[in-house]
Amino acid sequence: MSIQKPSIPKGTRDFSPEEMVKRNYIFDSIKSVFKKYGYQAIETPAMENLTTLMGKYGEEGDKLLFKVLNSGDFLEKTDENVLQAKDSLKLTNSISEKGLRYDLTVPFARYVVQHRNEITFPFKRYQVQPVWRADKPQKGRYREFYQCDADVIGSNSLYNEFELLQIIDNVFNLLNTNVLIKLNNRKILSGIAEIIGHPEKIVDITVAIDKLDKIGIEKVNAELLEKGIQQEAIEKIQPIILLAGSNKEKLEKLKEILKNSESGLKGVEELEQIFKYTSVSSIDTEIELDLSLARGLNYYTGAIIEVKSKDAVIGSICGGGRYDDLTGIFGMPGISGVGISFGADRIFDVLEQSNRFPAQDADTTKVLFINFGQAEEMHCLPLVSELRKAGINSELYPESDKMKKQMAYADKRNIPFVAIIGENEIKSGKIMVKDMKTGQQTEVSTNDLVAHFIQL
Amino acid sequence: MSIQKPSIPKGTRDFSPEEMVKRNYIFDSIKSVFKKYGYQAIETPAMENLTTLMGKYGEEGDKLLFKVLNSGDFLEKTDENVLQAKDSLKLTNSISEKGLRYDLTVPFARYVVQHRNEITFPFKRYQVQPVWRADKPQKGRYREFYQCDADVIGSNSLYNEFELLQIIDNVFNLLNTNVLIKLNNRKILSGIAEIIGHPEKIVDITVAIDKLDKIGIEKVNAELLEKGIQQEAIEKIQPIILLAGSNKEKLEKLKEILKNSESGLKGVEELEQIFKYTSVSSIDTEIELDLSLARGLNYYTGAIIEVKSKDAVIGSICGGGRYDDLTGIFGMPGISGVGISFGADRIFDVLEQSNRFPAQDADTTKVLFINFGQAEEMHCLPLVSELRKAGINSELYPESDKMKKQMAYADKRNIPFVAIIGENEIKSGKIMVKDMKTGQQTEVSTNDLVAHFIQL
Repeated sequence: MSIQKPSIPKGTRDFSPEEMVKRNYIFDSIKSVFKKYGYQAIETPAMENLTTLMGKYGEEGDKLLFKVLNSGDFLEKTDENVLQAKDSLKLTNSISEKGLRYDLTVPFARYVVQHRNEITFPFKRYQVQPVWRADKPQKGRYREFYQCDADVIGSNSLYNEFELLQIIDNVFNLLNTNVLIKLNNRKILSGIAEIIGHPEKIVDITVAIDKLDKIGIEKVNAELLEKGIQQEAIEKIQPIILLAGSNKEKLEKLKEILKNSESGLKGVEELEQIFKYTSVSSIDTEIELDLSLARGLNYYTGAIIEVKSKDAVIGSICGGGRYDDLTGIFGMPGISGVGISFGADRIFDVLEQSNRFPAQDADTTKVLFINFGQAEEMHCLPLVSELRKAGINSELYPESDKMKKQMAYADKRNIPFVAIIGENEIKSGKIMVKDMKTGQQTEVSTNDLVAHFIQL
Repeated sequence: MSIQKPSIPKGTRDFSPEEMVKRNYIFDSIKSVFKKYGYQAIETPAMENLTTLMGKYGEEGDKLLFKVLNSGDFLEKTDENVLQAKDSLKLTNSISEKGLRYDLTVPFARYVVQHRNEITFPFKRYQVQPVWRADKPQKGRYREFYQCDADVIGSNSLYNEFELLQIIDNVFNLLNTNVLIKLNNRKILSGIAEIIGHPEKIVDITVAIDKLDKIGIEKVNAELLEKGIQQEAIEKIQPIILLAGSNKEKLEKLKEILKNSESGLKGVEELEQIFKYTSVSSIDTEIELDLSLARGLNYYTGAIIEVKSKDAVIGSICGGGRYDDLTGIFGMPGISGVGISFGADRIFDVLEQSNRFPAQDADTTKVLFINFGQAEEMHCLPLVSELRKAGINSELYPESDKMKKQMAYADKRNIPFVAIIGENEIKSGKIMVKDMKTGQQTEVSTNDLVAHFIQL
């Protein structure tokens, strides 16, 4: 074994203890809210069969799947011609049957169909697991990252949409950060396409509208023209895209504009119902009806949800919507679902940039006992155990290193208190406790140790 | 997209909500103890460079690594001759640079070397992540499974060994299951090999001794003979392998037997020190000095630890030991470490078989509000929110389905209480609360709702 300079694959990351504390703070907050609303955890394997994954994320997605080589002599059954052709794409089919999870939605759809007979519907599930994409790595974009998804499947009720908005509100309140929820409805977008006489261009229109924020109205219009939508129709869309006013005003105007579109009116009605729920059980977070919100994904059929940070300039930090037929591809049609996904990495960046992480972490060691050697060590053992039994995370430094080194350890580890028990303290039955922040030293009787730290 | 019958790769598993509750109970228990002792979490990527992984687990291990295909046109730079030869092994080198994590130890060693300048030593880290092995799947053996590791690196003190024994004791106490800790020391095994005149056969001897439990003393002896160890030497080993008595008695006898082996005596001394610690700060779990304990891994240099269940017949459920030079392969020699790894899957089986999982899970929804329609739903909304704010996980059934279906949902989901608010209850300001276990119904005033459920 030769000596190697260690590294990890590009686009992947190690997480240090300090980063893990912050990441777990985000994950634990999100999970605690999911549970409060009755969502249940599931987990699926990192590897899925390629038959499950391929064709679900478009042609580009297929390329971005990490594919796992078959075990053993994978070339044994490979066609000579495929080898001769040196065609990577074709060869992949013969030498790889498994791929790494690309998102949590397709594995969830697969799970629901596979376990349909064990599941109690409506099924409210959450899932927090990493996904992998062979994207070109860049700032804020990784090849391995976590998704935090909550979905309800098997219920058409708009109450579910409302509940997901409550969850978003709860999560960001808990994380002490300000956000704006943007809400739209795919049926309204369909209605718009319909009334301007381009129902078949619905995808082109929504994709173009989605770019409004990024490229502006003129380039959006140019794109629509390019897609074969006539100038007259494009002009018809203008007032719709740039609609202003309160949510109520917007909905009223839309009702008028969309009066000849059944689908469009249905979309307005759905939004009205959701706003009715929010008026009864108040949501602190501002919700804005935003017709430019379409999101890239083509499978949304009703509500479309997106969350923007007010504390940092960054892309969306949560998003989702309703999809009417996700499980159909796995042979179980007609099951409606609605879900959201929190972007943990971006939320991390928001909290970091706006300094919103809590100062002290409950998981950090609270007390470090200094180690002065064999006799003092033995004296400390039962005391450390006592503190731990009382729920106080404690450590005894494992070696009788120099005092300075042990104090530096406490300092670097952010341990707030150091317990000093030398020869004198053993004789007097006292413990010298040093507050690492203030530098203040307090003498505590051995018998009062637990009581002393519990109240701190 | 054609319709597919959904399935997952062999040897992998989906985890249902019920299984997740039990698995998280195990993971959370283990993590809480790790934290109580000051161990800090890290995470490493699922994919490591194959240069990091290859050659670390023996020839067999190399074969069991899941290898990930390079992205894009991976054949572009492949040598024609390699393709012609149809040699899977050789082709792998040209088309794959990454592999899935096989254990948590090698990535940890890589992490320590890569981040040596950011780490505070002694470094006490824990890591709970899945690993992947292309083993032949069989009962209890999976291709994806979690490891739960705790290691201290950068400290030679035997206090660390003792602390890991305390952690084992704490974890299994917390999980309410009975175990036996087996302890040995590699230096004693080396001493034995030394005094019988076969120091070069240390690996053969320990591997053979490791099989004592499985194949019995006679077959072990046969194996030793086969390995080229003379009959005379084998006879010398007999009393050592079959040594009986208390730990203290065993150590005394060993001191006599190993008096001419410096290494052997050092091993005895180390064990004596560990038992000295346990005598001061009591450990409930029985610890047995077991010379037949060698474990397959060749890298242990001091303590060897293994935990057996007393509640179920199953292989070891936790194991570990000291390794003196794990980071040397990555260019950082002379750093000693000691660690343990909990086998979550086997612990799951033990708790399941011996019925030790807690009956009620705190994460499960406590109250389900029945949905009688639009008006009742709106009436319930603020009440559900109130309960959630008080920390009580609650749900409103999302649709006004038949009462029977909603009750069945509560039943299948194991929700202990159902809140019934119909027209009459709205008028009277009361709520009918049904205890799903006893069937008993209680009328609660709307104002007392939170107080009612908090005391349950």
